Amino acid sequence: MTSAGRRPDDGERYRAILETAARLICERGYEGTSMQEIAAACRLTKAGLYHHIQNKEQLLFAIMSYGMDLFEGQVIAKVKDIEDPVERLRACMRRNIEVVTRGASKEVIIILHEHATLTGEAREYIDQRKKEYVRFIESAFSEAVKLGRVRPLEPTIVAFSFLGMVLWVYKWFKPDGRLTEEQITDGMLDLFFAGLAAPGAAVPEPGSAPTLSRVAATGVGEKK
Amino acid sequence: MTSAGRRPDDGERYRAILETAARLICERGYEGTSMQEIAAACRLTKAGLYHHIQNKEQLLFAIMSYGMDLFEGQVIAKVKDIEDPVERLRACMRRNIEVVTRGASKEVIIILHEHATLTGEAREYIDQRKKEYVRFIESAFSEAVKLGRVRPLEPTIVAFSFLGMVLWVYKWFKPDGRLTEEQITDGMLDLFFAGLAAPGAAVPEPGSAPTLSRVAATGVGEKK
Repeated sequence: MTSAGRRPDDGERYRAILETAARLICERGYEGTSMQEIAAACRLTKAGLYHHIQNKEQLLFAIMSYGMDLFEGQVIAKVKDIEDPVERLRACMRRNIEVVTRGASKEVIIILHEHATLTGEAREYIDQRKKEYVRFIESAFSEAVKLGRVRPLEPTIVAFSFLGMVLWVYKWFKPDGRLTEEQITDGMLDLFFAGLAAPGAAVPEPGSAPTLSRVAATGVGEKK
Repeated sequence: MTSAGRRPDDGERYRAILETAARLICERGYEGTSMQEIAAACRLTKAGLYHHIQNKEQLLFAIMSYGMDLFEGQVIAKVKDIEDPVERLRACMRRNIEVVTRGASKEVIIILHEHATLTGEAREYIDQRKKEYVRFIESAFSEAVKLGRVRPLEPTIVAFSFLGMVLWVYKWFKPDGRLTEEQITDGMLDLFFAGLAAPGAAVPEPGSAPTLSRVAATGVGEKK
């Protein structure tokens, strides 16, 4: 990029290019989107596009970095100061589902989907930021274990179970579908935190009758 | 495909092409793999490849169909006759994680990753088979609810939470990593089934007051 690429008007143009490219890549995949198509959608010549963007991989990296900024701003920054670790995790799950289900998240979808596309240092940098999020969840969980608020499960398995539940949503959620974002959030919070809290694997073995008190306690007010 | 494509030796050749193409597509993505590269890896000319394969999308469809056959054979077929619905679900989770973590699953990884690549009838056909698996989980869960073995949660949210946990594994699992397939399986079974079975969200509040589910419903404690 030339030094002219740093002028404010070029900065705006650069943001607009990232937005447009993110929309195309989100729809068609990284490999399925050509620089020619991105240039056309930006109303630039291919040479004009290369004035702002070094190459396609650098473009993907810029989109992912911006997506990580968005994600950290909308999820981690909003919950990291919640003192109680269980409440921190709950708020984190809620906000993470929000980011995945709401439209403004094409950069985040690209991070999720193109997890193996970047190479070298760019990949390491994004992977590092992802790992920080995994560690954020692990350490909130471990803090909750220390306070006796949840069971002492394996923190990495807990973190990736949390992430699998909420991030997989990008594969199946439809904004006009039967389930609302709120129902999904409430349902997943209920399921996940009950799993953390329960005293051991409490599903009775086949043959042994479930205790009535357990069934009674769980059935109340759970209609969804 | 010519009628010669149906001769047994061509059948073997066809399988070998699917295997090779699946390996490449799994490594590089569908859009990142050219028919030229697939032909070269199969030691065929491009014309030779087109003797067996109509076009690239048909190739992807054939790989995914084969992947669904594999998946259904290794997961659904092995567990569908387990009478107890909770045991059926547990065995299903175990086998699903196995399929994702073991090497023989490149076709399944392609189904998971290229979920939006196919179009038209081919996409509908694969989506239909995926939906059958979702329904298989939902109905085992609903059966377990009727027997009073688990809490009456929303079946679709339960099914996609199950799927998110176990299918997300393809994104992060490393065969030489710290966590073994067995640890992951045991940890996820423990977490998920405790969540289904637990008496409400029973994590005590700091200071011991209301249940977390009540807090979640009212939004109390979630700092914005």
